[in-house]
Amino acid sequence: MIENEPYYLSSGDEANLFQAAWEAKLPVMLKGPTGCGKTRFVQHMAWRLGRPLITVACHEDLFASDLLGRYLLMHEETVWVDGPLTRAARMGAICYLDEIVEARKDTTVVIHPLTDDRRMLSIDKKGETLRAHPDFMLVISFNPGYQSVLKDLKQSTRQRFVGLQFDYPPAAQEARIVAEEGGVSVSVAERLVTLAGRVRNVREQGLTEGASTRLLIYAAQLISRGIDPAQACRTAICLPLTDDDRLQATLADLVEDLF
Amino acid sequence: MIENEPYYLSSGDEANLFQAAWEAKLPVMLKGPTGCGKTRFVQHMAWRLGRPLITVACHEDLFASDLLGRYLLMHEETVWVDGPLTRAARMGAICYLDEIVEARKDTTVVIHPLTDDRRMLSIDKKGETLRAHPDFMLVISFNPGYQSVLKDLKQSTRQRFVGLQFDYPPAAQEARIVAEEGGVSVSVAERLVTLAGRVRNVREQGLTEGASTRLLIYAAQLISRGIDPAQACRTAICLPLTDDDRLQATLADLVEDLF
Amino acid sequence: MIENEPYYLSSGDEANLFQAAWEAKLPVMLKGPTGCGKTRFVQHMAWRLGRPLITVACHEDLFASDLLGRYLLMHEETVWVDGPLTRAARMGAICYLDEIVEARKDTTVVIHPLTDDRRMLSIDKKGETLRAHPDFMLVISFNPGYQSVLKDLKQSTRQRFVGLQFDYPPAAQEARIVAEEGGVSVSVAERLVTLAGRVRNVREQGLTEGASTRLLIYAAQLISRGIDPAQACRTAICLPLTDDDRLQATLADLVEDLF
Amino acid sequence: MIENEPYYLSSGDEANLFQAAWEAKLPVMLKGPTGCGKTRFVQHMAWRLGRPLITVACHEDLFASDLLGRYLLMHEETVWVDGPLTRAARMGAICYLDEIVEARKDTTVVIHPLTDDRRMLSIDKKGETLRAHPDFMLVISFNPGYQSVLKDLKQSTRQRFVGLQFDYPPAAQEARIVAEEGGVSVSVAERLVTLAGRVRNVREQGLTEGASTRLLIYAAQLISRGIDPAQACRTAICLPLTDDDRLQATLADLVEDLF
Amino acid sequence: MIENEPYYLSSGDEANLFQAAWEAKLPVMLKGPTGCGKTRFVQHMAWRLGRPLITVACHEDLFASDLLGRYLLMHEETVWVDGPLTRAARMGAICYLDEIVEARKDTTVVIHPLTDDRRMLSIDKKGETLRAHPDFMLVISFNPGYQSVLKDLKQSTRQRFVGLQFDYPPAAQEARIVAEEGGVSVSVAERLVTLAGRVRNVREQGLTEGASTRLLIYAAQLISRGIDPAQACRTAICLPLTDDDRLQATLADLVEDLF
Amino acid sequence: MIENEPYYLSSGDEANLFQAAWEAKLPVMLKGPTGCGKTRFVQHMAWRLGRPLITVACHEDLFASDLLGRYLLMHEETVWVDGPLTRAARMGAICYLDEIVEARKDTTVVIHPLTDDRRMLSIDKKGETLRAHPDFMLVISFNPGYQSVLKDLKQSTRQRFVGLQFDYPPAAQEARIVAEEGGVSVSVAERLVTLAGRVRNVREQGLTEGASTRLLIYAAQLISRGIDPAQACRTAICLPLTDDDRLQATLADLVEDLF
Repeated sequence: MIENEPYYLSSGDEANLFQAAWEAKLPVMLKGPTGCGKTRFVQHMAWRLGRPLITVACHEDLFASDLLGRYLLMHEETVWVDGPLTRAARMGAICYLDEIVEARKDTTVVIHPLTDDRRMLSIDKKGETLRAHPDFMLVISFNPGYQSVLKDLKQSTRQRFVGLQFDYPPAAQEARIVAEEGGVSVSVAERLVTLAGRVRNVREQGLTEGASTRLLIYAAQLISRGIDPAQACRTAICLPLTDDDRLQATLADLVEDLF
Repeated sequence: MIENEPYYLSSGDEANLFQAAWEAKLPVMLKGPTGCGKTRFVQHMAWRLGRPLITVACHEDLFASDLLGRYLLMHEETVWVDGPLTRAARMGAICYLDEIVEARKDTTVVIHPLTDDRRMLSIDKKGETLRAHPDFMLVISFNPGYQSVLKDLKQSTRQRFVGLQFDYPPAAQEARIVAEEGGVSVSVAERLVTLAGRVRNVREQGLTEGASTRLLIYAAQLISRGIDPAQACRTAICLPLTDDDRLQATLADLVEDLF
Repeated sequence: MIENEPYYLSSGDEANLFQAAWEAKLPVMLKGPTGCGKTRFVQHMAWRLGRPLITVACHEDLFASDLLGRYLLMHEETVWVDGPLTRAARMGAICYLDEIVEARKDTTVVIHPLTDDRRMLSIDKKGETLRAHPDFMLVISFNPGYQSVLKDLKQSTRQRFVGLQFDYPPAAQEARIVAEEGGVSVSVAERLVTLAGRVRNVREQGLTEGASTRLLIYAAQLISRGIDPAQACRTAICLPLTDDDRLQATLADLVEDLF
Repeated sequence: MIENEPYYLSSGDEANLFQAAWEAKLPVMLKGPTGCGKTRFVQHMAWRLGRPLITVACHEDLFASDLLGRYLLMHEETVWVDGPLTRAARMGAICYLDEIVEARKDTTVVIHPLTDDRRMLSIDKKGETLRAHPDFMLVISFNPGYQSVLKDLKQSTRQRFVGLQFDYPPAAQEARIVAEEGGVSVSVAERLVTLAGRVRNVREQGLTEGASTRLLIYAAQLISRGIDPAQACRTAICLPLTDDDRLQATLADLVEDLF
Repeated sequence: MIENEPYYLSSGDEANLFQAAWEAKLPVMLKGPTGCGKTRFVQHMAWRLGRPLITVACHEDLFASDLLGRYLLMHEETVWVDGPLTRAARMGAICYLDEIVEARKDTTVVIHPLTDDRRMLSIDKKGETLRAHPDFMLVISFNPGYQSVLKDLKQSTRQRFVGLQFDYPPAAQEARIVAEEGGVSVSVAERLVTLAGRVRNVREQGLTEGASTRLLIYAAQLISRGIDPAQACRTAICLPLTDDDRLQATLADLVEDLF
Repeated sequence: MIENEPYYLSSGDEANLFQAAWEAKLPVMLKGPTGCGKTRFVQHMAWRLGRPLITVACHEDLFASDLLGRYLLMHEETVWVDGPLTRAARMGAICYLDEIVEARKDTTVVIHPLTDDRRMLSIDKKGETLRAHPDFMLVISFNPGYQSVLKDLKQSTRQRFVGLQFDYPPAAQEARIVAEEGGVSVSVAERLVTLAGRVRNVREQGLTEGASTRLLIYAAQLISRGIDPAQACRTAICLPLTDDDRLQATLADLVEDLF
């Protein structure tokens, strides 16, 4: 349960669409690059709808049983312990599966019955079929830039969700976020956002992904603690982005131009 | 056990064929694209034949023991717990293995003795050989568009089933379904179905699969909650279908033409 | 133990050869396509020789311990439970390993000591060396059309068996089987067998395997329940055989010519 | 412990070499094709040296613990149970690892300390270091025709053994064996050996391996039970050797020439 | 808890940057070649900040549960035992994941919620969500020279850290370190550093990586124990670096030039 | 603990280097071909330094827990049992990891903290951090001829060891070893060493590796038991080295020239 309103600046109609999906009991998929605010948006909506939020970071070794639950041996008895998805379906929480394409395939199939009009969860090991709480909502996210042939959502999974597209916020709005969360003046924040814009253009020259808003906030936080701005940018923006020496030189030039 | 008649519009002879197969105790395979109504059809037939329905969503980590059952430790004793297939064979239910080609090979072989005239299930771990209840029926489904060399039903499995072919419903019928389940007027539903027809043609230009009836219903549900129709189509139809930017532009054009 | 004589029409000397092998205590391998009667033949011979029959459907996840047996925890004690092969060797049953090439390699090696003049089974986990009952017989089957480099019986396994070759029965005999088991007139059965002959020729044009006798019986059973013969053939013969649209069209033409 | 002298016809100096190796406490590797008498030779030598024989058929899923032993839960206590290799080293038996190249790599390394002058077995799980009984001997076998890059004995393993080469016995000797063990006259046995000679030449035309002496004995046993000789040869020699139709035709011609 | 000040010679601003990151509660990634002092730097900073240090050497078989903790059976009860990451987050230690790219992907994802502003650790198996101690800090290291396509940090992981770049120390400083830790005179140390400089140039001719400061210290330690300097260099610098005979000859020439 | 001096003829400075490394507490890697005396050298040094020797033969399925130890269930309690590496570190033994490149990667990483100046062993499962006994020494060996891209020591592992290079002993010295250990006259031993020299030259014509000193001793032992020398060489030297027929012929010629 999220107690305080998470800071979130809306950049379009996404909150209304999310709310309509919630009312229609439709599951939602969030698409967009790393660190552009998908997780923050879900926290914000959970607070706005007054529902608890249960987040699961998906990974290659996430099995269906990690979502559903399992039997544990306790005081010489086997006790069933609900997994995060089961808990969310029971209590009517929003369950957020972050980076769903990373999960094992069985995990993506286990959510199918929850995403059609049955809204049921079949817990085979317990022999229980759980009808989801009316307020339960399933949200998944993924980064289309990552997908490969091996790691792709199957059509039979995709076509169970409505989609919301995310991107980096517009410059003015991103500067407000960086100033607010990084503890720097708006003018410094604007220069960081200008740098980010140039870095994101480098992307076409070989960077896998542009600098996220989060990295800008990191740089701002170092600057606000007295670190030299150019040094802070190298530390918080350039070095994390790539291991390629030539790209590092290009990024260092961009920093030097601005600080 | 399904209590209320599931909404289903028949588009051919499939119900009669299914019933004849059930009377002849023949197992059935349903072939067709994602979201065209295979699951709904099985629910409808289970209701019509008055048999309980047990559904298993197959996936890469579904082992034979997930279908047959296993020993669990309970109150210091090992207790056998039937899996969904064993339960169905014992009580005479319809057992529906959804997307069977996704399952591990041992799962597809375990059903062999149930699908010839022996109609038996051999539960090696329990040392039990179960003769299926006379009303038991096995139904499998798969999407031929998905099959690859690695994931293909073996001939020795295929030739144990009679087959029913499914496809998207005819336009008039699909519009009736979308209006009924999406809560929109027939004229809006017809425009959505027109859009779907055009999207399904794009398929030949690179879309893996066309828009399912389910996505049309999603769009209708958003529209009925006050979302702008074009926005609803982008959210519920375009974004879920593909991550390709150029295809998204094509789809957006199709939406703009109609709404 | 098989109580009633299983229906089997012999098409050569196979029963005498099988009986001589049983008397000489030689293991037997049955080679032939899917659904041509190998399983039925073993049932018939088990009944004729008055021996119990234990059948194991082999698959990729069949481990040696699934054949030999394992320790189970019961009432706080570990109890050994014989697997199907051990049970057969102990009681003098015929043990039939269906589609042996599908099994894991350890499974095929575990049967070696049972197939030479020692006729012993070494159960390492129990520390027991079991001498097979004099009436015990090992029978394996496989479909040579399936074999690939990866899934092939090793020479050191092959050369422990005498071989029997199976094929689809001659037309007249197959018609008698289809009429008897499918509940249709001989003339309908003959037309189905004619169709099968033509379908089996299509095989050279791309079908992996021809229509099995079992599929003909399925079609006959649907016809005997009032389904239109052409419809029954499409459902029970064409759709199960292939997912290729062009081959389906060819098959549909063959059906139309005959019904 | 082998009670009766196993029938074995020596074809060279192999018995003396084996005995010298045993006296020098050297491990021995037997190289040769399938079914040429390697196993029988070891049985014979075990009987001659008066040592018990423990045979392990190696396979892809044979783990080191299958050779060494493991802890089992019995009457609420964990009890150590020696594996076959440990048992042999303790009691001074001959341990015969058949088709060693099939085993997992950890299995082949576990025998290293037993094969140098330490003659020790390190049982890590038990924390025991066992010095082998003076009469203990390790014998391995493999078929050089099978070896591939993936399945090859490492030099560090090979160079711990002295080697004995085996092949099919000379014709006269093989005929005596077939007559003796197959229960047929010497003239029939000679014709079978002639057939084998011709089949072994076909090998250069595509047969993986020639007909083993064991298959000749199988054919003889069927003939001695009244099966037509040509039929017996097809059943016991041709069908087991290959699934290739053209090679089967060639083999059938060879049979027809002789019977 | 590190009691004595670890010897560390700073070669730039890295200590200030590390401290600012710690104050801003930002996670840090250390990039640089093998043996250039990354581990020593973390020990030094832990001592300087007065925080305990918990180090985990990552490897291919490091699972998330190895970091988080697991249930153990003790005195007939299952007891939860915290893993090193959980312990560090609870007590406010610095947790150092050495060579993070070697770990399994689930391990890298499990740290995500600890590295954004939530600073939480989700221990699914225990159903606990742990908020990290305010003094907790996460540090990871990796060697960019090692990274391959298969073993690369995902952008969604990278962009959660600020980065510090490490390299071999400048010559004068490295000589002081080698003299201090190797127990040799400064002039010997300088010659070893000169050798290292030349060896690091060979790197472009095929050496995977240059000689680390650690290897120079090893050579010094052997020299200080009376080993001939050329011999010590061959033993401690040349032989560990490569198995290539030609590169060894080149390295031997470099040694001969200097000692 | 080794009681009697193991026979070892030094061929260079290796004993002094080993002793200096032991005094400086540096870990040692031994590089060299199969059967050239690496293991014997470690036994000799353990005896000379008066330290117990614990040897572990590494293989593909050696897990870190096999080195560190594990919990075992004993008399209803879980008891920790130290693995060989932990035991050695605790008691100050020499721990010899033979053919380290064969081990799983987690095994090679687990030794890292033992090989830098911390000399610690982190036993995560027990929550114990063990500081190694001052007399503890880690020795690894590998055969550079075996290494492939897949099985290579990482630089971050290599650069933690000083290296000693081994090779077959010089001819005169090897003859003394063969005579001593094989029980033959020096003149016979010299002829065997001459043969070995020629065989080792064949290596360039396709032999993976030359004949080891161990195989020469095997041949000598057979000769000393009355086996014909040419026969003994074929059995103990030629057959173990290769399965290639043409190479066997070449080797047989070499034998014939000398005996």
